[in-house]
Amino acid sequence: MNDKDRFAPSEQILSGETADVYFLHARRILEAEGSDADVTMEVFPARDGILCGMEEVRQLLKKVLSPGGEAWAIPEGKKIEKREVTLRISGSYRKFGIYETAILGILAQESGWASAARSCVEAAGGTPVIHFGARHVHPDIAARLEYAAVVGGCSGCATPAGATLAGIEPSGTIPHALILCIGDTVEAIEAFDRYIDPKVKRIALVDTFKDEAEESLRVARALGDRLWGVRLDTPAERGRVTPELVQEVRARLDQADFKHVRIVVSGGIDPDRIYLFQKQRAPVDAFGVGSAISSAAPIDFTADIKQIEGRPVAKRGRIPGVTPNPRLERII
Amino acid sequence: MNDKDRFAPSEQILSGETADVYFLHARRILEAEGSDADVTMEVFPARDGILCGMEEVRQLLKKVLSPGGEAWAIPEGKKIEKREVTLRISGSYRKFGIYETAILGILAQESGWASAARSCVEAAGGTPVIHFGARHVHPDIAARLEYAAVVGGCSGCATPAGATLAGIEPSGTIPHALILCIGDTVEAIEAFDRYIDPKVKRIALVDTFKDEAEESLRVARALGDRLWGVRLDTPAERGRVTPELVQEVRARLDQADFKHVRIVVSGGIDPDRIYLFQKQRAPVDAFGVGSAISSAAPIDFTADIKQIEGRPVAKRGRIPGVTPNPRLERII
Amino acid sequence: MNDKDRFAPSEQILSGETADVYFLHARRILEAEGSDADVTMEVFPARDGILCGMEEVRQLLKKVLSPGGEAWAIPEGKKIEKREVTLRISGSYRKFGIYETAILGILAQESGWASAARSCVEAAGGTPVIHFGARHVHPDIAARLEYAAVVGGCSGCATPAGATLAGIEPSGTIPHALILCIGDTVEAIEAFDRYIDPKVKRIALVDTFKDEAEESLRVARALGDRLWGVRLDTPAERGRVTPELVQEVRARLDQADFKHVRIVVSGGIDPDRIYLFQKQRAPVDAFGVGSAISSAAPIDFTADIKQIEGRPVAKRGRIPGVTPNPRLERII
Amino acid sequence: MNDKDRFAPSEQILSGETADVYFLHARRILEAEGSDADVTMEVFPARDGILCGMEEVRQLLKKVLSPGGEAWAIPEGKKIEKREVTLRISGSYRKFGIYETAILGILAQESGWASAARSCVEAAGGTPVIHFGARHVHPDIAARLEYAAVVGGCSGCATPAGATLAGIEPSGTIPHALILCIGDTVEAIEAFDRYIDPKVKRIALVDTFKDEAEESLRVARALGDRLWGVRLDTPAERGRVTPELVQEVRARLDQADFKHVRIVVSGGIDPDRIYLFQKQRAPVDAFGVGSAISSAAPIDFTADIKQIEGRPVAKRGRIPGVTPNPRLERII
Amino acid sequence: MNDKDRFAPSEQILSGETADVYFLHARRILEAEGSDADVTMEVFPARDGILCGMEEVRQLLKKVLSPGGEAWAIPEGKKIEKREVTLRISGSYRKFGIYETAILGILAQESGWASAARSCVEAAGGTPVIHFGARHVHPDIAARLEYAAVVGGCSGCATPAGATLAGIEPSGTIPHALILCIGDTVEAIEAFDRYIDPKVKRIALVDTFKDEAEESLRVARALGDRLWGVRLDTPAERGRVTPELVQEVRARLDQADFKHVRIVVSGGIDPDRIYLFQKQRAPVDAFGVGSAISSAAPIDFTADIKQIEGRPVAKRGRIPGVTPNPRLERII
Amino acid sequence: MNDKDRFAPSEQILSGETADVYFLHARRILEAEGSDADVTMEVFPARDGILCGMEEVRQLLKKVLSPGGEAWAIPEGKKIEKREVTLRISGSYRKFGIYETAILGILAQESGWASAARSCVEAAGGTPVIHFGARHVHPDIAARLEYAAVVGGCSGCATPAGATLAGIEPSGTIPHALILCIGDTVEAIEAFDRYIDPKVKRIALVDTFKDEAEESLRVARALGDRLWGVRLDTPAERGRVTPELVQEVRARLDQADFKHVRIVVSGGIDPDRIYLFQKQRAPVDAFGVGSAISSAAPIDFTADIKQIEGRPVAKRGRIPGVTPNPRLERII
Repeated sequence: MNDKDRFAPSEQILSGETADVYFLHARRILEAEGSDADVTMEVFPARDGILCGMEEVRQLLKKVLSPGGEAWAIPEGKKIEKREVTLRISGSYRKFGIYETAILGILAQESGWASAARSCVEAAGGTPVIHFGARHVHPDIAARLEYAAVVGGCSGCATPAGATLAGIEPSGTIPHALILCIGDTVEAIEAFDRYIDPKVKRIALVDTFKDEAEESLRVARALGDRLWGVRLDTPAERGRVTPELVQEVRARLDQADFKHVRIVVSGGIDPDRIYLFQKQRAPVDAFGVGSAISSAAPIDFTADIKQIEGRPVAKRGRIPGVTPNPRLERII
Repeated sequence: MNDKDRFAPSEQILSGETADVYFLHARRILEAEGSDADVTMEVFPARDGILCGMEEVRQLLKKVLSPGGEAWAIPEGKKIEKREVTLRISGSYRKFGIYETAILGILAQESGWASAARSCVEAAGGTPVIHFGARHVHPDIAARLEYAAVVGGCSGCATPAGATLAGIEPSGTIPHALILCIGDTVEAIEAFDRYIDPKVKRIALVDTFKDEAEESLRVARALGDRLWGVRLDTPAERGRVTPELVQEVRARLDQADFKHVRIVVSGGIDPDRIYLFQKQRAPVDAFGVGSAISSAAPIDFTADIKQIEGRPVAKRGRIPGVTPNPRLERII
Repeated sequence: MNDKDRFAPSEQILSGETADVYFLHARRILEAEGSDADVTMEVFPARDGILCGMEEVRQLLKKVLSPGGEAWAIPEGKKIEKREVTLRISGSYRKFGIYETAILGILAQESGWASAARSCVEAAGGTPVIHFGARHVHPDIAARLEYAAVVGGCSGCATPAGATLAGIEPSGTIPHALILCIGDTVEAIEAFDRYIDPKVKRIALVDTFKDEAEESLRVARALGDRLWGVRLDTPAERGRVTPELVQEVRARLDQADFKHVRIVVSGGIDPDRIYLFQKQRAPVDAFGVGSAISSAAPIDFTADIKQIEGRPVAKRGRIPGVTPNPRLERII
Repeated sequence: MNDKDRFAPSEQILSGETADVYFLHARRILEAEGSDADVTMEVFPARDGILCGMEEVRQLLKKVLSPGGEAWAIPEGKKIEKREVTLRISGSYRKFGIYETAILGILAQESGWASAARSCVEAAGGTPVIHFGARHVHPDIAARLEYAAVVGGCSGCATPAGATLAGIEPSGTIPHALILCIGDTVEAIEAFDRYIDPKVKRIALVDTFKDEAEESLRVARALGDRLWGVRLDTPAERGRVTPELVQEVRARLDQADFKHVRIVVSGGIDPDRIYLFQKQRAPVDAFGVGSAISSAAPIDFTADIKQIEGRPVAKRGRIPGVTPNPRLERII
Repeated sequence: MNDKDRFAPSEQILSGETADVYFLHARRILEAEGSDADVTMEVFPARDGILCGMEEVRQLLKKVLSPGGEAWAIPEGKKIEKREVTLRISGSYRKFGIYETAILGILAQESGWASAARSCVEAAGGTPVIHFGARHVHPDIAARLEYAAVVGGCSGCATPAGATLAGIEPSGTIPHALILCIGDTVEAIEAFDRYIDPKVKRIALVDTFKDEAEESLRVARALGDRLWGVRLDTPAERGRVTPELVQEVRARLDQADFKHVRIVVSGGIDPDRIYLFQKQRAPVDAFGVGSAISSAAPIDFTADIKQIEGRPVAKRGRIPGVTPNPRLERII
Repeated sequence: MNDKDRFAPSEQILSGETADVYFLHARRILEAEGSDADVTMEVFPARDGILCGMEEVRQLLKKVLSPGGEAWAIPEGKKIEKREVTLRISGSYRKFGIYETAILGILAQESGWASAARSCVEAAGGTPVIHFGARHVHPDIAARLEYAAVVGGCSGCATPAGATLAGIEPSGTIPHALILCIGDTVEAIEAFDRYIDPKVKRIALVDTFKDEAEESLRVARALGDRLWGVRLDTPAERGRVTPELVQEVRARLDQADFKHVRIVVSGGIDPDRIYLFQKQRAPVDAFGVGSAISSAAPIDFTADIKQIEGRPVAKRGRIPGVTPNPRLERII
């Protein structure tokens, strides 16, 4: 699948069915009036963040704006500032007007997620952050979420669909469910080791039945060098994962000569929590983050008409005319 | 389109591509082990809210669980409490295990939106609330958002796709863009009146070029009885819509004998803002709400295995065994 | 009118009618006892501020203390510190004792206003601040308020009486009332232009009937080069004047080639609000300030007897004897 | 002096010198234009309070509005509510327009003081409150302040001029200055007792040289039944007057059989402080209050033209037309 | 040992060595002066609380005050109010003056502890509270602490010396140290069961090596009906004991038919924490409390001389004379 | 009395009666099992502080651990950090295990007091701090409190028993009680001067009957050069001692040529209050501190077994094995 395919707009988007209906009314009126003005529209965000979704927007505009129209944008994955012009579209308003809802929506939601991912990644310093949050969004949008998390800086994500979009392999350990079905953590990781492609890392989830430190030693003894790491996912009812728990598990693994076993931490991890682990120098090898990214609010984007037939215009409250931004690159 | 079609799961969901990959590993291991235990799983939310997405979940489970499996759930649109069992699935874990990500995601995101919509609707007392927020989410998910807003109590939504899902007609006025293209608010509403199906309400947007009170009187004089209402959408740069503005526009319309013209208020409207209008008895006829609903965080849902082959189990931190909830209804 | 006249004490002050009655009792007792001690009294403020009223105090003391008495003071308009000795009076207590109430009152109220004015002026950087607050105080004291505002750093004030006291010309635009009486802003500024002395600046008030940006362009087109500026005074019901409104009006005036038209901002302006305009680099040419100055609390001043017949004394709680302050200058 | 004299407007007010200059411009323009419309103006406060200054306003209007004009008002001393119409003036705008600044200023400053006085009086329950704050305002306005304090509910005030305006006798004790000059508290009160009219209450100030309890007993022994009370005015440096100090002085006076000696408390007294004394049941016989009243911010009043030649009008942000208020009484 | 022995004052107290030395100086001076006045002294606390130590004070006074002196007091264990007279002593000041330090100290520290214990007991409703805090105070005072905890309402305490003073049996489980020495929790509780008097309750500490729920089931299986309960003492590093943990351990014990096994909770327990358990209806059978009681600040007590030879006196700041309190009972 | 005697453990400590009873059970079980393992235990504090009580612990361990055991510790009076190993004990657990309660208790309470004393001393800069707090603790522990205050940096303490423990002379002035008995402050200090050893400093307490400034001058005049200082102890009812009071008393003493008379301040003094005096440069010569030290909460200490027969061990939540700390010194 190439980039074009990955981000191609769906038929429903192209048909305008997902547009706010007043844009459809506006198109009908302009057609009836025979009006076909050349319009320049600018798009800007309501707060600082990481831009995500622009590639998808480019593909949509390419399909609907050509020939004759032009567009400039800040590239995917860059930092953008509050009220900075991020996208400028110039062309026949009748051609692109009905896509305002879709363009804003793509940028808003994906940039919201990418920005939240970036906050986690920055908090983590160099420690990798893996995104696990598909379970908090509708499956129709889960792959976009995972893509945005990777654009924001995550090293991995959990769903095959998301990983494909992001161009990487999906990451995963063992669910609590499998351990419950098999009835013992060691037996579960051994079954995993038997049947799953050796290229997949062996990471044991160690909080299902027994104390995490005890279970970590048990799985390490069972798999030896084949064990890549353990994942601590202690539930809130047991006090969540603490920096002290990571330090203790590390110490007990080291004292038993399992220095190669890495520690992955998950469960309610957000930037504040990551800072806490960093501040206390807890030896975490990777963070698994879910709702801190998937629950991020969209970054509202606004589209303003700034020029009609070369003449500066604006609605009340906005400055008429084009706002120069040297960061914009021609995309169409 | 019947209900079945509206909520049918996509091919990508059914294939497991949007599942966290460890569920796919788990299925492979259980198959390799020849294990096929009968498992009961319970799903509960992390906070209070309005349940949305359950009909979609039902259709997914119907497809994958039968024959032999069973499911019980709280019905779509009901209030649910923090940690209340909302869904119980019983059957072959190999059949339904990989859909945990999808099930949780559907419920989480749609319930998050429906709950936020309910907060607005409750704040508004009997005044209708229209959802306008498609522009803040990806167009692939916009219709689900609009459906959830209606489940939460909104009286209308803006996109054709969303309206179809919710079984209503889309609502809309005139965009600022059309007024800017035509160059005058009165001419724009007159054009609207000329070309758009008379069944569509004539609602003039009155903050584009002139003072809202002045423009309201101009459009009322132009359309007379055909004008259903005016929409105030004053931008933040001009102080947003205030209760006093609504009162003044109402007074000026009434003094000019346009008592039939309704007032719709939009722009940064959320429950606090609605309470302010209600408290000051501002004569609002409808509220247009966007990001207060579309930016709502998902309500995290958790799925726990509570019984295997009739035996109570649970991972550490959870109570083993089924938790009775008389509100559950058999759905499969 | 020379300085002497401007600040000459009234008959009511000189008679002691405005003194706290116990000072009158004290004078009567000392006279009856035949006591006429040489007393040194010191006056200090309860908080930091700008000293105002000292010239008036000097004229009062000159009249009542001579011959034989002496006084030292910090000069009008200087910064003073909490508890810093600001005025020292030495002489026959029977001569000056009854004026304690008047002296403290003059310094307290005028210094309170001057200090508040200074806060606005400092917030405004180099942008002029015009005082408009006479409407918040009794007309018998309005001129003193305006004088104090100018001592505090204001560039202008609005009443003829105040301007006379401060030695400047009064500043003013057009009241809303005139525009309402005439019925249109353009007609009102044209009438102003016809009848008022050409030396008076033409400043149009542009928020009475129409949107401020629209009205600014209308008055600029009507008066052309004769228009000195526009005043934005948007009421709270319409969101007050915001930095964004100033920027937009500036941009729209500039795009229509009215770069010479200045922008005056008023309505609820205080130091915090001024900082906001400065921080957002709103192109304000002058601030009109009212209650932020006129509502300022007086700065309490206290007078303590510190020496009697050369002997250090003090009431409980105060250090006996004169407190040296090199900033004091001999005024009598 | 009758009421008429007490509140007669000064020459400076009548001449318009204390008006904002733009009202003078407006009058000139209307005269030049030959315009003489019949205008109705309404005046309302920005916050709740006690109305003061209306009698003075009535005298001003009587002089300038008649014949032909009318006015309605809420009576002096009544509670008024935020935005309640307090005064309505109807007549030739050219006649009364220039007095807007004076009318608003009188009401604003006097109502601000009266409202603060009321807060103290309400906190004090039935205990009398005496106003002492002339020293915080300019002597030209001190009598108005004292009058407003009495309108707000104070039982006494300290300056002869203020007492005259309020129609009562001035209240006063002994200043610290007299005690310092005489050198002993007992000698000072004895001198007072010798020379001052026996109708004036003997109240000894007891914190100048010695401990308040010790000094209270000394003055009580010296004057016996002629002593009306003691005043505690302990400075902040000695911990101000506390409820415990009042209780102790009361107890020591009672144990020495001076039950007739009253206790007056002063020094930094405000409503919070009064509540503290009341809550701890300190046996205070009167409170002396200064800056809690004299430092009160004015209550901003606004004047709006609401009708011209019988036609409802208003500037943007206000409701056109007269606002009915049954509490208004015809005053002219 | 009878009451008299339990609370008899030590030789060091009687000798005055633990008195503030200025009391010793005072006694010497009064003796030298031949002064032997009859003095009444009153003792009151600085805040509300539970009175403890009065029995000990009674024994001290009995020894030093008789014959001729008298004393009245509120009884041991009663609630006392801030500034309420709690003890009144009357007699030769030379006899009892030097014991002021000792009397105040006994009451201050023991009442502080008893009051803190009462807060825990009240929070716990009917659930027993056991005191464990000897480890936070010097062993010379540990028994007094434990006595005070019992006076405050605790059902048990941990040291033999404290239990003796309180007239009960000491309570205890197993220390972590024993489990570490033996190497397994089950073996440790079995050893305890073998060697310790069967009258002592078998309570297993279950957080040393394994998960608490797992270990609880192991010890229950090992001891069966002989197991009285388990103690959860999860360290902060593992998230402390939570209400959810108690609920889960209870559920797992019940499901395994160990309904007779009680749950004792300890580790950082204080009133807030107890309220949390109560609010979430966690099935706790007893709370073990340490530093929430042992760290309690003393309640400052003050002793004032109020009468000398029948004449009311007091130092500045206090009311002279005896303060009646009907709650006082004659103790000597 | 030499060091050995000063800190020798009491019979009750040695017998184990003050130990938590489960340690006695543990010893019995280990004896019954014939187990006598060599154990290393480490002790650490829960927060930063000043270590106090270690000398006493050393004497206890010397008695019970030898021969064969070893111990290392941080020296008395040093700063210790949260969780820093402060004491390490190695030897037969049966020998030292039952003293865990006593060891922790000694360190906890004395270090709590010493740390609070240090806070006062640091706040005071070079100004001496005298401890007066024996009245807030039980007399059986008062001497330990005073010793700890001196270890924390206090220059003096008030009880003979405490001073002996700390190796200094007790400090004291005159109690209010003596002044009340004698009836006048000057007579009281004169009696003190007559009868008390001239080596004891003459410090007059000056707030009993009269104003502090007045009384200071009276006592200075009475004793002249023999007066070492005055103590200000103004009660809360009279506003406590303020920096301004100290400044005024200093000024009045200096003006009367009593520059040699020092000023001691007491009454509710704590570090915040001391900072206030220092910040305002109040000329205080010594601070008397009571409950700011005596009410200090103990610093919780924890003892963990970290090694058994040379093998690293730990309970859950702790890192197994010895934690190196180069600050430890061999004490046995």
